[in-house]
Amino acid sequence: MSTVPDVVAAGGAHLPALLERVEARLAWLAADHGGPLAGHAEATIAAGGKRLRPLLVLLAAGGADGDGLVRAATAVELVHSASLVHDDVLDGADLRRGTPTVVARAGRPMATATGDLLFARAFAELVGNGRIDEVRVLSDASSALAAGELLQRADAWDVTIGVDRYLLRCELKTARLFEAACRVGALEGGGADAVAARLGEFGRRIGLAFQLLDDVLDVSGPTERTGKPRGTDLLDGTVTLPLLLAREHDPRLAALQPRSVTTPAAAAEVCDRVAATGALEEARARALAIVADAKLRLPTGLPAAQRRAMELIADGVVARYA
Amino acid sequence: MSTVPDVVAAGGAHLPALLERVEARLAWLAADHGGPLAGHAEATIAAGGKRLRPLLVLLAAGGADGDGLVRAATAVELVHSASLVHDDVLDGADLRRGTPTVVARAGRPMATATGDLLFARAFAELVGNGRIDEVRVLSDASSALAAGELLQRADAWDVTIGVDRYLLRCELKTARLFEAACRVGALEGGGADAVAARLGEFGRRIGLAFQLLDDVLDVSGPTERTGKPRGTDLLDGTVTLPLLLAREHDPRLAALQPRSVTTPAAAAEVCDRVAATGALEEARARALAIVADAKLRLPTGLPAAQRRAMELIADGVVARYA
Repeated sequence: MSTVPDVVAAGGAHLPALLERVEARLAWLAADHGGPLAGHAEATIAAGGKRLRPLLVLLAAGGADGDGLVRAATAVELVHSASLVHDDVLDGADLRRGTPTVVARAGRPMATATGDLLFARAFAELVGNGRIDEVRVLSDASSALAAGELLQRADAWDVTIGVDRYLLRCELKTARLFEAACRVGALEGGGADAVAARLGEFGRRIGLAFQLLDDVLDVSGPTERTGKPRGTDLLDGTVTLPLLLAREHDPRLAALQPRSVTTPAAAAEVCDRVAATGALEEARARALAIVADAKLRLPTGLPAAQRRAMELIADGVVARYA
Repeated sequence: MSTVPDVVAAGGAHLPALLERVEARLAWLAADHGGPLAGHAEATIAAGGKRLRPLLVLLAAGGADGDGLVRAATAVELVHSASLVHDDVLDGADLRRGTPTVVARAGRPMATATGDLLFARAFAELVGNGRIDEVRVLSDASSALAAGELLQRADAWDVTIGVDRYLLRCELKTARLFEAACRVGALEGGGADAVAARLGEFGRRIGLAFQLLDDVLDVSGPTERTGKPRGTDLLDGTVTLPLLLAREHDPRLAALQPRSVTTPAAAAEVCDRVAATGALEEARARALAIVADAKLRLPTGLPAAQRRAMELIADGVVARYA
């Protein structure tokens, strides 16, 4: 099973220092040194998880180094952080990765404004690179992310949406920012547009698989690993692939109205029924196929270390959910 | 009293067609033609008010014309629209300019995502100009706007904040986007950096005066003109200049805890007390002085029609509240 350290080890000796610089930059921006953000975003950004998106930026840049690359990786993670802060507002979530959310600590108005500020600062950060092509990639991805969020809310509680609509939502909400991470990394690394486009296709697929597997995990648990009760998506009205597939196999699930599921216990029971249909294996198999396809998109002629690291990150996305 | 038509008439024969193009572009983007935004942002954008910010973009560009200028004006208005949508979420507002708000029609989650999408699309729009300097101006202003919103929420109910803090909030929340409107207009119009900076100073002051006078109007009414009950800011916990000044004259107001004011009738009574101290005249006088200073910032050598139109827009900001 590949891990972030494996990826970093494969990707090159320049990576640990770069990742530390991204981390320091994120911490510096979140601390805001007396500014209005001080104390609000630090916990969210510090809790920040695996830094998969910044890592993709750095890997896609090949062996490139420098402040521009750090800015690009930081900007992508800021957009991601902004979306997490707003997600937590909408879900009224108290905890994220064991840390109190901004909305839990400071209330809805502060959290909404915090997300807006992180989002605006992502662009302020990237602008430092002076490259309109990078800004274009990030603004497109940000639009997609918000559009995906809109679609998800519009689709809430609707079990008739179909798999294509679900996949479109995943593309918008998750895959496009993974794509953007690879593209800005490649651009900042001096890669040709064609190489940036291929790396973007890779990232997009990895992001899609990531979202599919995340949705499987919400059904499969275990909660010790996810840090949230099984069936949280269902209770939020977010209809995901496992339920869509399971409905085709189990008439009782097909007849289920998600709104009638109102307790964690009832949600866990639905999760068991979904698992019993084999829908989780089916969804996992789809994700694996997407990851395999992603690897095929890696441009020929990519330096061996870079290729190896990107393959490992693809495997890591899968392994996280194995 | 100068009006938008007066400004347009003074500014040049090219303005009406340009303003129409901005309007058409905003309507086109809001309609979203089957996209996830369709049906959500149209009312907010259509209800859009005076288009003061796009008008500043166009005026600051001198006689310039073209798609780039339309994009710049559209992008600035999209940022403004995004902030209105989020403001309405935070205030739980039902109506804006007589039209149901996004949050009233579609609920908080949809409205939050709608604001995020408008914001992201502002950057996607401006990127079309291919100018990193314009993106820098807009991202800085967007950061300031969100920071101002954060400060306002952090300062909620606090009557001890002092005038300087209030003015800083106005700068961030309102003035910086007016400044950005003038700067991107000047840049798109081919103006020198020094001219863009001066026009930015003009815009910043106009925006500051605009916010001060808006806050006066919340206290003075009449409600037929503002479309909201007097004292709405007070009920929201937003402490503004009239109350800060009035507290210095009236010990009963100095002792008032805004949280104790919970009904529109009680708020109206506080507004009367504030007005009785002369604080409204004092706040208005400050705004007028800022507008006078703004006019002095207009660069020498500005074409006569452009100067005249910008002076009229400054007067219009004042006249709206006379």
